[in-house]
Amino acid sequence: MATTRREFVRNMSLASAGVLAGMASAEAGGLAGAGSLAGAPGAAGLAVGAGLAGEAGLAGEAGRSVRLGIIGVGFRGESHLALALRRPDVDVVAICDVDDQMLDRAKGILQKSGKAMPKIFTGSPYAYRDLLALKDLDGVIIATPWEWHSPMILDALAAGIKYVGTEVILGITLQEHWDVVDAAEKNQAHVMMLENVCYRRDVMAALNMVRQGLFGELLHLQGGYQHDLRGVKFNDGKPPYDKGVEFGEKAFSEARWRTNHSVHRNGDLYPTHGVGPLAMMADINRGNRFLSLSSFATKTRGLHNYIVKNGGEHHPNAAVRFRLGDIVTTHLHCANGETVLLQHDTNNPRPYSLGFRVQGTNGLWMDVANSVYVDGVSKPDEWDPAAGWFAKYDHPLWQKYSKDAEGAGHGGMDWFVLNAFVESIKRGVSTPQDVYDAATWSAISPLSEISVEGGGRPVDFPDFTRGQWMYRKNDFALGDDF
Amino acid sequence: MATTRREFVRNMSLASAGVLAGMASAEAGGLAGAGSLAGAPGAAGLAVGAGLAGEAGLAGEAGRSVRLGIIGVGFRGESHLALALRRPDVDVVAICDVDDQMLDRAKGILQKSGKAMPKIFTGSPYAYRDLLALKDLDGVIIATPWEWHSPMILDALAAGIKYVGTEVILGITLQEHWDVVDAAEKNQAHVMMLENVCYRRDVMAALNMVRQGLFGELLHLQGGYQHDLRGVKFNDGKPPYDKGVEFGEKAFSEARWRTNHSVHRNGDLYPTHGVGPLAMMADINRGNRFLSLSSFATKTRGLHNYIVKNGGEHHPNAAVRFRLGDIVTTHLHCANGETVLLQHDTNNPRPYSLGFRVQGTNGLWMDVANSVYVDGVSKPDEWDPAAGWFAKYDHPLWQKYSKDAEGAGHGGMDWFVLNAFVESIKRGVSTPQDVYDAATWSAISPLSEISVEGGGRPVDFPDFTRGQWMYRKNDFALGDDF
Repeated sequence: MATTRREFVRNMSLASAGVLAGMASAEAGGLAGAGSLAGAPGAAGLAVGAGLAGEAGLAGEAGRSVRLGIIGVGFRGESHLALALRRPDVDVVAICDVDDQMLDRAKGILQKSGKAMPKIFTGSPYAYRDLLALKDLDGVIIATPWEWHSPMILDALAAGIKYVGTEVILGITLQEHWDVVDAAEKNQAHVMMLENVCYRRDVMAALNMVRQGLFGELLHLQGGYQHDLRGVKFNDGKPPYDKGVEFGEKAFSEARWRTNHSVHRNGDLYPTHGVGPLAMMADINRGNRFLSLSSFATKTRGLHNYIVKNGGEHHPNAAVRFRLGDIVTTHLHCANGETVLLQHDTNNPRPYSLGFRVQGTNGLWMDVANSVYVDGVSKPDEWDPAAGWFAKYDHPLWQKYSKDAEGAGHGGMDWFVLNAFVESIKRGVSTPQDVYDAATWSAISPLSEISVEGGGRPVDFPDFTRGQWMYRKNDFALGDDF
Repeated sequence: MATTRREFVRNMSLASAGVLAGMASAEAGGLAGAGSLAGAPGAAGLAVGAGLAGEAGLAGEAGRSVRLGIIGVGFRGESHLALALRRPDVDVVAICDVDDQMLDRAKGILQKSGKAMPKIFTGSPYAYRDLLALKDLDGVIIATPWEWHSPMILDALAAGIKYVGTEVILGITLQEHWDVVDAAEKNQAHVMMLENVCYRRDVMAALNMVRQGLFGELLHLQGGYQHDLRGVKFNDGKPPYDKGVEFGEKAFSEARWRTNHSVHRNGDLYPTHGVGPLAMMADINRGNRFLSLSSFATKTRGLHNYIVKNGGEHHPNAAVRFRLGDIVTTHLHCANGETVLLQHDTNNPRPYSLGFRVQGTNGLWMDVANSVYVDGVSKPDEWDPAAGWFAKYDHPLWQKYSKDAEGAGHGGMDWFVLNAFVESIKRGVSTPQDVYDAATWSAISPLSEISVEGGGRPVDFPDFTRGQWMYRKNDFALGDDF
């Protein structure tokens, strides 16, 4: 483990830049989820609801700003940095990266903002631990390669940080997901995975329609990550993307680390953008839960084809045998009888689509067709354009904050997910998407690997809430607060 | 078994009308599939290819018409009858039904056609056996309730009929599928399931694009049967549909027999319209095969809701516990590494859609969005309207026969499937979709029931070709012949 991580670290200067660079074209970030974890009387877990035990947010220091540290200021962390600097209620007091180029970019952004220059930590892959040792941090944001998320979260919790916001993918192995849940409970701290798609405007309108009963009782949900990432998984060692067929040490950015997952793993490697919004609609961990999972993978062709086409059949990478099936489909059974279908499709040419389908006893939304059908309102057997419905059921958060979100990444949804994290800190309350959501959504990756390996056999889904899902209420984005 | 069938038969006068009446609003019928079953040297199976052993079609009697019998002249069989009567190369020499009303309608159609009145068999549920005893039949068409298909096919084969065309759903149990395959081989006779959707114009254009390599190597296919059948599964004992909440003895038409499957069975009850076209694209039974199947069912709500809404919560049928999950999703693994996803969704309000998705290494078609993407031709990351592509790649059969198909059921595709059956008889060759296709597509129902019952566990898919799939060539609709 140590060796692997050390080797990995050698390439971090570009890698940490890469995680952001590549993510600029992918979406990443966070939802906001289950606020009040009331729980059963005397139950274990996070004893939160209206703030951490013994905490009352910043209430005792009215007017003071939230003090944030940011670990990883590559292109994705840089985006969080820029949004944080736009806020009068946030002071970025520390940043950390191992890449000088990205640190220079961050300094430039900071100077332009007119805000005070934060403490800067660098020089070692573990410099972030010095950042975590600062005594005045209200929270940290982690925007580094997937492998680094859970070690950094665990270190942050051990250091006493009470609010940790991490980019999507909580951990690689199932055990890492449990470790983070255990540590959050032990330290009574909040871990929010910054799943931004829960805040996509049409997704929130659909959530609004679900809650107002337009679709009836939910039956079946679909989503996924259908995004041609070939130009992200390979490059020639320099930006921009879409050029070159290198990955690993010779590559720049995400290709430096992310592609290696396609070499070695077969499963849904990136489930959270699809499942997060659906989980909120279906009250997962809040009166409902995933019971089991089955995954199915096609053969793998796309990445090899791309290398041959762009690098020739004699390029050394043409000999690499990728394990990741080109299209991986995952099924989830829910305790309340719904089914959820996710698709991971990143290796071949295709238009971008998260492929949402939200269907109940009274109608459905089909994302790919921008169509909605509501029984009794839509003409029989005819689709309505979704736009009219979504304008009518625009979520109160978007009605209130669309101007604030203007210019923020991924159509504005990045603003909302950071806002949710910051507002939770200010009030000393649970983040709207919490550690149980993070673990549940992200654990789909290792579970799907097990199922694919077993020819699609059903795998039991762990209950990270340890039974609290029966008591927890869904208060994600109930109003126009945050 | 005998008792059950006898009880069933008591209700046949309406039921046989019903199978057709209901199917007039659903599609049903047949593809046309694998012509030459060359096979391995010395292999068992159907020793066909260019006609049955010892047969040469009607070649020896040039100019004579094909002599057809039709068992079941309810609304579906009536449609086949009307199409057959339009053809100068067909004589309908016998019809059979137990329902006087439907026989009267058939006689009216026959009189208007100016053709000779066929022999009429009626008066008993087993009157069809007298029809089968006729010595001059070139083929029979069966359009009766699902439960009657395999017994009637087996009787037809035993009677020496060499061409049997059956409406979709070959059998209920897995064993029935094997029985039909065994009997077809033993009698060296052809059983064609009249799966019409393989002849849908856009589906054939997509097949054409697949064969011309536009989508690259196939990876993932989707289809299904997404059709609100509530108004078909229930009525008030009289036509028209969409009125009343009765099924079984008090109901008319399909509600009399089809709904009972929703009471007792949980699985994909109607897979062939979705899987047939996909199987032809993926060369199933012709160089490829299904290896395993997994199915997942949602809770069941729609049919109960419909009864309560239209009949009140105190209606006796409000107490019926339906087993059929409202949405059943099925996954198939293929020997060549593709995945196939099917969805059965018939119990709730929704627009009709067979939901085709045909995706390869170079692009895809999404039926629900009427969209196509072809790498290198479509603008990057943008869907094209499917219409332009499908006009350009219109299948030769449609180019040649679209005028002949005008006015035929289901947008003309019914003409093509009957034409394929008749032309096969005339030439003494294999039907383009054969008994192995029929068994493979229809067996998805009993297999999916096993998987659903096992919580989605993978079920091995039988190889009805007994290894011949490795040798058989796909010659379905290769040109503009039939």
